[in-house]
Amino acid sequence: MDELSILQELRHNAQELADNSPLGQLLWKNALKVHPADLSSFFEDLDDHLFDAIFPKFPRELKLEIFEHFSDAAKVRALAVMSEQDKIEALNRLPSDELTDLFDSFSDEELKANLHLLHRKSRENLLSLMKFSPESAGGIMNTDVITLVEDFTVEKSIHLLQRLRPRKDIYQQIYVTDRSQRLVGHINLEDLVLEAPQSRIGSFMHANELVASTDQDREQIAQEMRHYGLMSVPVVSEQNHFLGIISSETLVDVLVEEASEDVQKMSALAPMKQGYFDIPFYRLFYERSYILIGLLLAQSFTTTIMRSYEATLRLGSLLFFTNMLISTGGNTSNQTSALVIQGLATGDLRSANVRRFIKREILMGLALSCVLGVAAFARAYFFTRAFTESITISLALSAIVVIAVTLGSSIPLLLRRFNIDPAFSAGPFLATLMDILGVLIYCAICRLIFGA
Amino acid sequence: MDELSILQELRHNAQELADNSPLGQLLWKNALKVHPADLSSFFEDLDDHLFDAIFPKFPRELKLEIFEHFSDAAKVRALAVMSEQDKIEALNRLPSDELTDLFDSFSDEELKANLHLLHRKSRENLLSLMKFSPESAGGIMNTDVITLVEDFTVEKSIHLLQRLRPRKDIYQQIYVTDRSQRLVGHINLEDLVLEAPQSRIGSFMHANELVASTDQDREQIAQEMRHYGLMSVPVVSEQNHFLGIISSETLVDVLVEEASEDVQKMSALAPMKQGYFDIPFYRLFYERSYILIGLLLAQSFTTTIMRSYEATLRLGSLLFFTNMLISTGGNTSNQTSALVIQGLATGDLRSANVRRFIKREILMGLALSCVLGVAAFARAYFFTRAFTESITISLALSAIVVIAVTLGSSIPLLLRRFNIDPAFSAGPFLATLMDILGVLIYCAICRLIFGA
Repeated sequence: MDELSILQELRHNAQELADNSPLGQLLWKNALKVHPADLSSFFEDLDDHLFDAIFPKFPRELKLEIFEHFSDAAKVRALAVMSEQDKIEALNRLPSDELTDLFDSFSDEELKANLHLLHRKSRENLLSLMKFSPESAGGIMNTDVITLVEDFTVEKSIHLLQRLRPRKDIYQQIYVTDRSQRLVGHINLEDLVLEAPQSRIGSFMHANELVASTDQDREQIAQEMRHYGLMSVPVVSEQNHFLGIISSETLVDVLVEEASEDVQKMSALAPMKQGYFDIPFYRLFYERSYILIGLLLAQSFTTTIMRSYEATLRLGSLLFFTNMLISTGGNTSNQTSALVIQGLATGDLRSANVRRFIKREILMGLALSCVLGVAAFARAYFFTRAFTESITISLALSAIVVIAVTLGSSIPLLLRRFNIDPAFSAGPFLATLMDILGVLIYCAICRLIFGA
Repeated sequence: MDELSILQELRHNAQELADNSPLGQLLWKNALKVHPADLSSFFEDLDDHLFDAIFPKFPRELKLEIFEHFSDAAKVRALAVMSEQDKIEALNRLPSDELTDLFDSFSDEELKANLHLLHRKSRENLLSLMKFSPESAGGIMNTDVITLVEDFTVEKSIHLLQRLRPRKDIYQQIYVTDRSQRLVGHINLEDLVLEAPQSRIGSFMHANELVASTDQDREQIAQEMRHYGLMSVPVVSEQNHFLGIISSETLVDVLVEEASEDVQKMSALAPMKQGYFDIPFYRLFYERSYILIGLLLAQSFTTTIMRSYEATLRLGSLLFFTNMLISTGGNTSNQTSALVIQGLATGDLRSANVRRFIKREILMGLALSCVLGVAAFARAYFFTRAFTESITISLALSAIVVIAVTLGSSIPLLLRRFNIDPAFSAGPFLATLMDILGVLIYCAICRLIFGA
């Protein structure tokens, strides 16, 4: 039986597992063969009472491995049903960056109780790490890593690795310091294999291409790591003392989280750190409804505008085209700002080529306004058979498209300049602004032409 | 002078660099100190004639390093001005996964000319790799990696590494095969340091937690690598022969590209593989305009609907509220589908908990429809002072919100089932559908209540 079908069976018969029925005992045998990462997903989907009944029954080592794969919310749940001894082991095994994440999600009381379970040194380390913002290099670095000193020989370094290995993580790049812990360079793990046992680390180490300070923004670091093609980066204090590293695992997490945040900001969602099921219903409801209500009220401004141009709009079929006009404005501005946001995120768009970008977008705005204007005229004339009306609609649409491209390309750049995430501009906020502007432009052009 | 100001100076005086003026010669000295990754950005922003004048003047080794950091479009441009010898060196140095990417962007003629420059073995390798889809494991794997055989001793393995190192890449996980190249496990690079020289690889190797086949989708692999917390994954043939690996560098690239694609699909943009400036103007214009025109025409369907309910809508202020109603529908459906897309992308939402998700969203839809209905009533009554009108608007909005949550949560799941990227459903397509449905619902409810 493969893992997938075992998992499915476990899910369907979770109650039997909890009850230790004859079928349950059979299932147990299979359950122990499943990869801890998959078991962690199994537990995360379980109702609380089943979780509490089944999780403690797993053998200790497997329980600890599953624990490492849990989301922070599931870790909190698991800690509540673990023995004191298991908790101590589980917490002390986590690398420092995951430990800070977990402790950030504790209530004050849980924090106090769990802090107590850490070994003295980890506790001190954790407390000093929790001072850094979770969005900064200091907040995401792993401090449990092996470093070497430049005048060590290869042989001595290998002994050190052997001694520290179970407690400290080894990455492919090992950072090198001088005797007073100041960062001086790095070696690659394979250098220890390939260099002679008596050669000194300092004689073959490489310079660091990128060094992060504790307060640097994690998104910026991720972008620089990609730019220089690096899979890890050292973090240093103001005095250049080595503090920890940002590993490729962390880089991947940061990229995925930042991409999620962008999508959320583009979709009328407040950025959320937790998974969908880890957020309580009432909080998700609050986060979703207040933005929608805000947008509804902002949008209803169009009603007021249209009312004041009522006489003009009631002519012919003019009123029936507002939807088409303002939707096109919203789509155009979204499309443009998404391009800018992407360009900024990937580094394609940078201060050195902003001018070239603006020139290109002005041209693009004009070209788009021409073809969309023609399309709108065709559609309107087909519907109304009224030439002046169709021309009015087409003119309004062209004007709206030019404004949409202008705002869509400039607002993300402006936000960026004021250190606001440009992703906010794609999506509903800019679209609502374009709705209001679109109605204004349409009404003004209608009045200009029909005079009413 | 720091790198940033050197770069800025180079940019402003690129003509001097090209002309070899006295100032230019001064600049050259600084230019040679800049990191190749930054020089590559400098060149990518340069006009063609300056690129062609300056790039060939760089010292050979630096030129080759800059080349490695170039985007595919810039690589093509650089190859055009490089000597035969430099081209051979540059192409043969690229790892197999980057080489296939580059060759995919060549025209047929360029392909032929450049294929000729590869060493015979790389050429054969490349040709066999180019048969795989660039979205599959086969298309993104690196084949230039060192593998070990299970009955090698540590000592022999180290000799092998020393011999192959300049030509092959070493990653932290080294995969292990049997004598007939069938994958049997992996070791960590540090094992070679920590194990005794005479112990055999097979005696301490670990089982592989995840193995990819050549035709597996790259997005799925990236998701599984994150699930199991792996930074590399081996790719095997149907007969389990080792073919190559997907490294953490590639994982990062895949995640960033897939995130870009999601944002594009959510923003009325066709997914684009190239950077903004690498896409010719007319192609970008085409990609942007045809989607906008399509949406415009689809949207204009609302005009037809409203026309047929004209008599009802002309009552009171009913017509002035259509914008507010349909925008709210679009925002609600976007918000909901973004949540689903995110959940699917991060693995929070999986077949095991889809039911729980649907239950939760039904409740959420009802809750949202209540509070938004109240908000809409308040807004409408404040504006019209007409009770029946305001109730009508509020009822319509509530109905629209329920439909928006229903479609927003079910359409991405349906798309996924039919193997279409769910990201298509967030953004303009679903929003346009909601516009049309919104107008229909509104008109129907108006007629029901006012009967006209």
